Amino acid sequence: MTDIEDLTARIRAFADARDWARFHTPKNLAMALAGEAGELLAELQWLSDEEIRTGLSEPELRARVAMEVADVFLYLVRFADVTGIDLAQAALDKLARNELRYPVEKSRGNATKHDRL
Amino acid sequence: MTDIEDLTARIRAFADARDWARFHTPKNLAMALAGEAGELLAELQWLSDEEIRTGLSEPELRARVAMEVADVFLYLVRFADVTGIDLAQAALDKLARNELRYPVEKSRGNATKHDRL
Amino acid sequence: MTDIEDLTARIRAFADARDWARFHTPKNLAMALAGEAGELLAELQWLSDEEIRTGLSEPELRARVAMEVADVFLYLVRFADVTGIDLAQAALDKLARNELRYPVEKSRGNATKHDRL
Amino acid sequence: MTDIEDLTARIRAFADARDWARFHTPKNLAMALAGEAGELLAELQWLSDEEIRTGLSEPELRARVAMEVADVFLYLVRFADVTGIDLAQAALDKLARNELRYPVEKSRGNATKHDRL
Repeated sequence: MTDIEDLTARIRAFADARDWARFHTPKNLAMALAGEAGELLAELQWLSDEEIRTGLSEPELRARVAMEVADVFLYLVRFADVTGIDLAQAALDKLARNELRYPVEKSRGNATKHDRL
Repeated sequence: MTDIEDLTARIRAFADARDWARFHTPKNLAMALAGEAGELLAELQWLSDEEIRTGLSEPELRARVAMEVADVFLYLVRFADVTGIDLAQAALDKLARNELRYPVEKSRGNATKHDRL
Repeated sequence: MTDIEDLTARIRAFADARDWARFHTPKNLAMALAGEAGELLAELQWLSDEEIRTGLSEPELRARVAMEVADVFLYLVRFADVTGIDLAQAALDKLARNELRYPVEKSRGNATKHDRL
Repeated sequence: MTDIEDLTARIRAFADARDWARFHTPKNLAMALAGEAGELLAELQWLSDEEIRTGLSEPELRARVAMEVADVFLYLVRFADVTGIDLAQAALDKLARNELRYPVEKSRGNATKHDRL
């Protein structure tokens, strides 16, 4: 079992045990995911890149950021579970597509496009 | 190598080959992550739960949603890579914490809290 | 002085008095705006449309939602101030543009497009 | 009529003419608002503060940013309309509250809190 499959199973058990699966519609989960992404922004928004680098080497900010990252991941895994999307495969497919869209030789040093991944 | 480790390595190679790693500060990646979460919202925002269920069983909406999910995941994995956060471990830690915060017997049927995972 | 101009001036005075203007780069303010939009999502994400309607007629949820709406508006007004964008004019321009893009007779009952405003 | 009242009336007429008011639930509008905030992030996410300053003095980026700002504002005004929240008053209330929470003498130069407005 991969780590994503393991996490999917644990989250599903967590939700089922609390009878929370009924709240977990795709729409609600997408909102929760975006809300957690917003909390990650809130941890970093007033800090300079230098302050973030320093802060992430210290336990307090590091723990807060790790927690927001975890929340985003939990909702993402749960969203993929309820919609039947294979998270790892979808990511690999998108990466392959981006490799075609952004050929190495044309993309080096070019900072005008939205995608950077 | 787990699927997250594999994906991390591939994204890193993708960024390095294009000299895009210099754009990948934690701040910029958090913005990109939140932007992609916003695109996922945009796919679902005018549809009812019923329309989403039907739509996700058809290839067009399914492919668009899978792509947004993939984008969120790619930026999340990349954010974890540049900040040195172990994504799977952070998620397991948060889930363990939520199991303590929301004991099964007190949480069943209770819909007043923000967390639902 | 319009209400937006008045609010712009008050927010500017608030920031200047605390020496916080130096944090108010367009990038940081855009992050704060998106973070507050995420908090608004968090207030509504587990509630059904019916529960939201009921909840908004009661003081508690109403106050919390009004506060998140206010936060989004404060950061939006501040973003417009530091970037020199005329908020009311930009909105009127966009609305005029949408009126051309979505002619009344072709748009009635059509729910397939992203824009709904 | 203030500019916010005027805009509220125009947006309402726009939605009613297209029979789109039925899509405009608080939940859907909050999603659209957050989605547009995400598009604003996407315009700025790969640019440095210096590139943003330069870019905003040129018509292309300026127009794109103004459009995203407008979209956020349109959905915010519409959200306030359908929920019966007085946008200007809510912002003034929140600002007054922040003035109490962040007294000038204790807040100068202090960059550790989330709020910066």
